[in-house]
Amino acid sequence: MPGNSIGRAFVVTTAGESHGPGNVVIIDGCPPGLSLSEDDLLSDLARRRPGQSLLVSARAEEDRPEILSGVYQGRTTGTSIAILVRNTDARSSDYDAIAELYRPGHADFTYDQKYGFRDHRGGGRASARETVARVAAGVVAKKILAEAGIRVIAWVAQVGDISVSVDPLRVTEAQVEATPVRCPDAVKAAEMIALIEEVRRDKDSIGGVAEIAAIGVPPGLGEPVFDKLKADLAKALFSLPAVLGVEYGSGFRSATLRGSQNNDPFIHEDGKVVTETNRHGGMLGGISSGMPILLRAAVKPTSSLPRTQQTVNVRGEPATIETKGRHDPCLLPRFIPMAEAMVAIVLADHYLRHRALLGK
Amino acid sequence: MPGNSIGRAFVVTTAGESHGPGNVVIIDGCPPGLSLSEDDLLSDLARRRPGQSLLVSARAEEDRPEILSGVYQGRTTGTSIAILVRNTDARSSDYDAIAELYRPGHADFTYDQKYGFRDHRGGGRASARETVARVAAGVVAKKILAEAGIRVIAWVAQVGDISVSVDPLRVTEAQVEATPVRCPDAVKAAEMIALIEEVRRDKDSIGGVAEIAAIGVPPGLGEPVFDKLKADLAKALFSLPAVLGVEYGSGFRSATLRGSQNNDPFIHEDGKVVTETNRHGGMLGGISSGMPILLRAAVKPTSSLPRTQQTVNVRGEPATIETKGRHDPCLLPRFIPMAEAMVAIVLADHYLRHRALLGK
Amino acid sequence: MPGNSIGRAFVVTTAGESHGPGNVVIIDGCPPGLSLSEDDLLSDLARRRPGQSLLVSARAEEDRPEILSGVYQGRTTGTSIAILVRNTDARSSDYDAIAELYRPGHADFTYDQKYGFRDHRGGGRASARETVARVAAGVVAKKILAEAGIRVIAWVAQVGDISVSVDPLRVTEAQVEATPVRCPDAVKAAEMIALIEEVRRDKDSIGGVAEIAAIGVPPGLGEPVFDKLKADLAKALFSLPAVLGVEYGSGFRSATLRGSQNNDPFIHEDGKVVTETNRHGGMLGGISSGMPILLRAAVKPTSSLPRTQQTVNVRGEPATIETKGRHDPCLLPRFIPMAEAMVAIVLADHYLRHRALLGK
Amino acid sequence: MPGNSIGRAFVVTTAGESHGPGNVVIIDGCPPGLSLSEDDLLSDLARRRPGQSLLVSARAEEDRPEILSGVYQGRTTGTSIAILVRNTDARSSDYDAIAELYRPGHADFTYDQKYGFRDHRGGGRASARETVARVAAGVVAKKILAEAGIRVIAWVAQVGDISVSVDPLRVTEAQVEATPVRCPDAVKAAEMIALIEEVRRDKDSIGGVAEIAAIGVPPGLGEPVFDKLKADLAKALFSLPAVLGVEYGSGFRSATLRGSQNNDPFIHEDGKVVTETNRHGGMLGGISSGMPILLRAAVKPTSSLPRTQQTVNVRGEPATIETKGRHDPCLLPRFIPMAEAMVAIVLADHYLRHRALLGK
Repeated sequence: MPGNSIGRAFVVTTAGESHGPGNVVIIDGCPPGLSLSEDDLLSDLARRRPGQSLLVSARAEEDRPEILSGVYQGRTTGTSIAILVRNTDARSSDYDAIAELYRPGHADFTYDQKYGFRDHRGGGRASARETVARVAAGVVAKKILAEAGIRVIAWVAQVGDISVSVDPLRVTEAQVEATPVRCPDAVKAAEMIALIEEVRRDKDSIGGVAEIAAIGVPPGLGEPVFDKLKADLAKALFSLPAVLGVEYGSGFRSATLRGSQNNDPFIHEDGKVVTETNRHGGMLGGISSGMPILLRAAVKPTSSLPRTQQTVNVRGEPATIETKGRHDPCLLPRFIPMAEAMVAIVLADHYLRHRALLGK
Repeated sequence: MPGNSIGRAFVVTTAGESHGPGNVVIIDGCPPGLSLSEDDLLSDLARRRPGQSLLVSARAEEDRPEILSGVYQGRTTGTSIAILVRNTDARSSDYDAIAELYRPGHADFTYDQKYGFRDHRGGGRASARETVARVAAGVVAKKILAEAGIRVIAWVAQVGDISVSVDPLRVTEAQVEATPVRCPDAVKAAEMIALIEEVRRDKDSIGGVAEIAAIGVPPGLGEPVFDKLKADLAKALFSLPAVLGVEYGSGFRSATLRGSQNNDPFIHEDGKVVTETNRHGGMLGGISSGMPILLRAAVKPTSSLPRTQQTVNVRGEPATIETKGRHDPCLLPRFIPMAEAMVAIVLADHYLRHRALLGK
Repeated sequence: MPGNSIGRAFVVTTAGESHGPGNVVIIDGCPPGLSLSEDDLLSDLARRRPGQSLLVSARAEEDRPEILSGVYQGRTTGTSIAILVRNTDARSSDYDAIAELYRPGHADFTYDQKYGFRDHRGGGRASARETVARVAAGVVAKKILAEAGIRVIAWVAQVGDISVSVDPLRVTEAQVEATPVRCPDAVKAAEMIALIEEVRRDKDSIGGVAEIAAIGVPPGLGEPVFDKLKADLAKALFSLPAVLGVEYGSGFRSATLRGSQNNDPFIHEDGKVVTETNRHGGMLGGISSGMPILLRAAVKPTSSLPRTQQTVNVRGEPATIETKGRHDPCLLPRFIPMAEAMVAIVLADHYLRHRALLGK
Repeated sequence: MPGNSIGRAFVVTTAGESHGPGNVVIIDGCPPGLSLSEDDLLSDLARRRPGQSLLVSARAEEDRPEILSGVYQGRTTGTSIAILVRNTDARSSDYDAIAELYRPGHADFTYDQKYGFRDHRGGGRASARETVARVAAGVVAKKILAEAGIRVIAWVAQVGDISVSVDPLRVTEAQVEATPVRCPDAVKAAEMIALIEEVRRDKDSIGGVAEIAAIGVPPGLGEPVFDKLKADLAKALFSLPAVLGVEYGSGFRSATLRGSQNNDPFIHEDGKVVTETNRHGGMLGGISSGMPILLRAAVKPTSSLPRTQQTVNVRGEPATIETKGRHDPCLLPRFIPMAEAMVAIVLADHYLRHRALLGK
């Protein structure tokens, strides 16, 4: 049974592989009347694209989206929106050498086990290439959120042992985009860049942590029990490649805290009820509280390495593998637009779901 | 739009509040022919129940489930199974004093914001009482998994600063159940118990971490892209009350690792392909690899505290609150059967989904 | 994969068999603040109940619903509503003689083929008894619709060869309920009753047609393509036992019409655009036009007959069967509240879905 | 909330308008290993295409599908399949004259009411052009069914007052395709053609009835209660443009029958249980019986007429309209491949759903 759709009121369905003709997304449930053009998609697609700097993979294709439906005279019609991004720079031959090998840390083995068959070129459907469709949908989601006064912003908070503390209410996209590592702290960014360069020279890779904030989310989004907002946000982030952990608010640190340290007192401020602190990360009982939503995602080091690794081939025989494709020594910088897209998609979904129940 | 169902092939839908007549679960998609009786449900319901020891809340009601449908002559019929667990020991008057107050860390405020109205007694739908329905469904899920040779086991791995390392392949339910804290290491369990007692005396609470393992999961479960197995498992765990973080495999630790340290080499062993290590936590590309699935969930300290806390009332006026209801100083012990249930529900769902696609 | 839920924004999930402990419905997505009590359910449950007259089955149980959740202080809370209706008059022994026989026209054979196993008592899950859960959900749906100025009314339009023409804008529930056959035309009702009595004396049964109207539906409900309002309404009616056909507007008669005869001209009337005639049955392009929605459902004659019929047993051996249970000689009168419920459930769903997309 | 997807295990999602860049379908849940190429799609796309004969619209574009994903080396991979069919012959200017008019019988008015805005060119999303995506998905569904020994065939059974009786077990696709009217009875086909020509000369249109048969469906497909096979098939057919009625088996005729006339006796034949007659149309209790599934759909006369009709414009002012676009005087011939596609999609879905529950 299929798993290529997400959302209930704002439903995103994707198709496409790394080295096939292209990637497609159908966005169903977008309200009518939003302005939308192919140009609107370019910025986030470019942020996601490999080849932006030495920090990330050198695959240089330009992602030119084509809106196939759902937009008329520059505005969404309320019917399903399809966007196609063709694959233009797919050097399949890079992958011939590893067609029969299972790359450590990759989905080659599990796809073969599941389907008995796979498109080995560049990871096929398991490639991060599929996120191009998510990022396109994220642009549409961000437009819905913008009308509701909600914005989503993400940044690199940690690379290896270098971490940074960022105020989610003050950080700007300009600060994030100021360096290729997408860490808004210039000093730490320089350290991160140096570390990534060092790792690249070692023919290795390095992990990190991304932080994502949603500002302006009104209280009341999220559903009780299974579709708690925290649950749907976590699913969305975990659905991205390489994510091994997600936390919000005080997260794993809460394991060592006492209740008296972790609770956020309610106070009355500027005519509304808020909490004095935000260790609850903007969600209580799985429903948004009106405080900023703060999420963190752990991203593993790139599995593809330009060095020799032990593995087996499809017949189970021992083999060595050395990845020749273009791969990022650190996934974090390109992860930022992907994470923003997934968080925006979930928030847009719950924003529309809330309207169904409450009529506003 | 509603959020009281989870799953696609094995669909669990719940209803019920803390202090209403009872909690109900409808389980849709259970294969026919499984043996199932009310007695089968008792063990896990008892494990979830408050009042088992001084470590957890003293609410003493006995959970007597009634199977209302879907079982005939002791076997599941293949049609929807309904199970009712009545609320028998619900002292609503305990909550009268706080009807107009927003308890810090609780969903009182967010429910009021969402619905404009709430059942304040014991948290209503936001109470951990609703997990009784999940645990009942988990028993059915475990039966499906048992037929497929899959078992799910969870334990307390950390309380405050006391943590333990457990071999998921060797730990037994008997070891877990040997102490009221549900930590299988007897020495560490005693330390945890002492800490919880200390915290209780301080009129405070303490957080912790649960670990959940699924053993015997065949390779191939999980769907590409959005319904990755890791994504659905994370959602299920995050849907439980008080969970602030989830990780699997090397998790957040992977942020500081290099690819050469984090990758698990494939080897051939006993006639099949496995990995030498299991830093990938049993899932690659979101699809099970055949290795044990290893998850960790951070559970915050109980928000209800028997001490004075600052808050506001429903009119936004400053107020103090001192919770009088029966509450656990540490949620972890009772969290174990809930976490097992959610992981079992997701695995049963993906097991059946896989059959739809592959016919086996 | 399961099929015991219907709806997307207003989701109804049911469980229960004819002769088990009871039938349960969980209603997910009902807006908060609607007044709802068990007494509200009694009227439609009584209309659905067998034993109301000689025209229908004599099974005399009284359906006493119990609201288990989702209602507090007489109002819906916005969380999932569970309603239980116990089976109180279930003479299972009536069915012992046919435990191994396949009743013609019933689901005994197909359930055995599907599940390899079935609860033979009274048809189990395939019994019309399960509609008690739908009718309870229909009451909640009607409340949502009433707030939006929409009402649903159904009546018996045909029994055998006796048919009647009814003005959907003028017919009242009082007229429908005036006779046990639920045909609002007193003269035709008497003829229908006489025919049903004749059929009963012949130890036979007779089919008929129900008409269902939804008045006050605003233009704009329904989704393009697959979830057209006509498609979801047809599915809902076809999901009821014994329905062999559904049509709306000019229906099957349109097969013999020319476009110039079938099109409804648009006109401007009382400040709004309407159609001069309503051959389109209130839906164009699958979306409501604001004109009354008019549906017709063909209901087959009761399959259970108190006379000898040829069949086979579970081993495929020839056998005869004579149904001893209590069965209606004509299903139509009891079908009316079921049809109203299903139409109301679909309209409530699309009403809430529309709000998600349009915010109003 | 969106309605551009259908199915649960085999999920078809579409996007596209009549006069936009193209139509796209994403097919999710197709098992891996099926042979599939663009050439496989051509036949059914050509059957659906306008301009095949004078009987149908002269819009002459050739539908060249492009498979964008989900197929590798000529076989399905098990991941989502995307197919694009570009619009190549879309004379938007034909529609300029009616941009502000509400065409009788069309969705212009209801789309404006729903979305406040519409793509008027050729009906936009409400155009029959969108069925190109359905037909492409139907080809994939038919491949799944073929592996299971199931085939779907449809034909024109009635045009105006000319009707034909066809043996579903004997009729062949060659017979259906022998005439442009797609009625397998050569004599009646000639009469139908003459009638359609007459209607065209009258600048009018005519309705009809299509019959669809599914042969080789094993007993057991379909779910109890809401997702009965008959319910999902009816929804699928009603989701097609212009369908005003659906029936199966004895259908509306059953309203006038007695139970003793309508029941099909079970018999034992060739080692299996079958029914002597098939008035139940291959489904009992909403589950397939193993007998041929027989459906009938009423299709209204084309609403677009090349003659003057009364209507109003978007401001509600009286106006006349005369459709200048290319339109079929009878929709039935082109409806046949659409109906086959929808029935195949539903059967493939239920075939895979059955595997989830039963493991075979």
